[in-house]
Amino acid sequence: MRHVIGLDVGGTTMKGAVMDENGRILIRATKETKVHNNLPLLLERMAALIGELRAKSPVYIESVGIGFPGPFDAENGISVHSPNFHLHQADLRTPLAKLVELPLFFDNDLRTATLGEAVFGAGRGISHLVFVPLGTGVGAGIINEGKLVRGDSGFAGEIGHVRFPGLTAPCNCGKMGCVETVASATGIARVARERLDKELNANPLGAKASQLFTLCDGDITKITAEQVATAVGKGDSLAIEAWNEACEVIGWALSVLINVCNPQLVVMGGGVSRAGELLLAPVQASIGRYAMDVVHEKTRIVLAELGADAGILGAGALALLAMNEGSKTEKM
Amino acid sequence: MRHVIGLDVGGTTMKGAVMDENGRILIRATKETKVHNNLPLLLERMAALIGELRAKSPVYIESVGIGFPGPFDAENGISVHSPNFHLHQADLRTPLAKLVELPLFFDNDLRTATLGEAVFGAGRGISHLVFVPLGTGVGAGIINEGKLVRGDSGFAGEIGHVRFPGLTAPCNCGKMGCVETVASATGIARVARERLDKELNANPLGAKASQLFTLCDGDITKITAEQVATAVGKGDSLAIEAWNEACEVIGWALSVLINVCNPQLVVMGGGVSRAGELLLAPVQASIGRYAMDVVHEKTRIVLAELGADAGILGAGALALLAMNEGSKTEKM
Repeated sequence: MRHVIGLDVGGTTMKGAVMDENGRILIRATKETKVHNNLPLLLERMAALIGELRAKSPVYIESVGIGFPGPFDAENGISVHSPNFHLHQADLRTPLAKLVELPLFFDNDLRTATLGEAVFGAGRGISHLVFVPLGTGVGAGIINEGKLVRGDSGFAGEIGHVRFPGLTAPCNCGKMGCVETVASATGIARVARERLDKELNANPLGAKASQLFTLCDGDITKITAEQVATAVGKGDSLAIEAWNEACEVIGWALSVLINVCNPQLVVMGGGVSRAGELLLAPVQASIGRYAMDVVHEKTRIVLAELGADAGILGAGALALLAMNEGSKTEKM
Repeated sequence: MRHVIGLDVGGTTMKGAVMDENGRILIRATKETKVHNNLPLLLERMAALIGELRAKSPVYIESVGIGFPGPFDAENGISVHSPNFHLHQADLRTPLAKLVELPLFFDNDLRTATLGEAVFGAGRGISHLVFVPLGTGVGAGIINEGKLVRGDSGFAGEIGHVRFPGLTAPCNCGKMGCVETVASATGIARVARERLDKELNANPLGAKASQLFTLCDGDITKITAEQVATAVGKGDSLAIEAWNEACEVIGWALSVLINVCNPQLVVMGGGVSRAGELLLAPVQASIGRYAMDVVHEKTRIVLAELGADAGILGAGALALLAMNEGSKTEKM
């Protein structure tokens, strides 16, 4: 049985684990990553986390897989662009390999999470799938013929920044009306907040009696997608309107991916997917309205299974697959 | 130097050629294919065309590549669905191989045309490209890491049936507002016809003085996309409005493909692409409005180079690539 370390580097913390070929986690560890504009310090912390896991590991570790935020040049171990850490064209593999004497395999964190669900989660045994985490933003990880699709410069899967004609909210990317202005956790909260704000002006008594107003303790700037989902569960009409608007756009975005990529399976993940059936049913209805029938009729839409562990398990899967392939190995 | 036959089977005629590894065509032949619900007759005509090309060929033919309309199971040589010939789950390879004692390689005709442009045309040397023929319909052929993307059931690339929110024209697929209701040759003609029809009611004298009215000899049911392009070139304001509407949707559709597939190159083909710069400039402007900047800034948008030969050259390329791979060979 082979063992590797999977590392999921996030903007505030990095999580790591020693795991086996079957995706079983033996040991976990985390470390803070609030490091800005200081690559040596970031690498030092990554090396320390790897070192800690190795020290505690009862088994021999063969290699390390790492999921890193932002577009990533997986072949060369280079962070193309990472706003979280103010990195641009930064070689991570060469200096980290000097600190950690193990083969290292990198990719963008959305793609490693996709591998996680594909290898150990909802997509086990599926060769064509799309993984769409609905979190702060929205992206898509694409598996075609069992392999991650990266595109020419590592940007494949930017469904969150496809513009939905008719939407006008400004997006972080600089454009407006992008899918993620409505379909992300942030987008859902924004849409609900705007609706509640409007209602507070039009019908203050009714608005203040809403579940949503109670759930956010009367501070509408604090509304979260989770609160919207909770209010939907309680039948709050205002929350339901906002939720339905989001599910319509999520379903449309998935229908685009279904038409273009023709996956066997679409896996919805991220915080929003914790809403479960509340999300699945309206999203499937939206897909029925938007996707080409002969294509989506063969596509199953499911919820992610690994939760927050998709990142570390996928990073480990990246290392395991790369070692099996043998070709891309970066041995010390 | 290896030689193969490339065969491009269309609904009314099939075109074939003997060609070499460099895409040079030595001999051509065509045959009628107006065959409905009669697979044996269709196969007989295909075999006859192959036989004719072999008989005339001065060189030894190693194999035959065939592009066939409709979703195709390339691995098993099965036409999944072909409305043109009323075929459903029809095995073409087994019976044709009995008639033609040569290795046969099949794929959907959009994908073989994509291979044509990728191997011998505008995409020479490019590993990540998208080919979008703008003809009667609109589809996309996707090349990722130098390989055709087929999807789980052979439907990948159905960009023509992605719904553009806000559009309402009924589509052949049974839905409404699909990209191809505006972005195809048929769609461009329809939009122009509807605009001219409206103008004929509102302002008959002005409408009848338009270039478009002259070009269609006063019969607006006969308007073609080519006439619209000609009228645009002559500065006809009504044609320009229709053309711009189409280019906006074409650019939006390409921006979806750019965001999702992150190609290095997008190749526009089909009849509409003969408009050249008249098409390129407004489509590029539309992409600038819709696609994610960091992604599309690295993407070149060009016109197809092979015209109607993309199909036969791509079918030949399919055979050449398959023989080089060696794995998928179906030897007699």
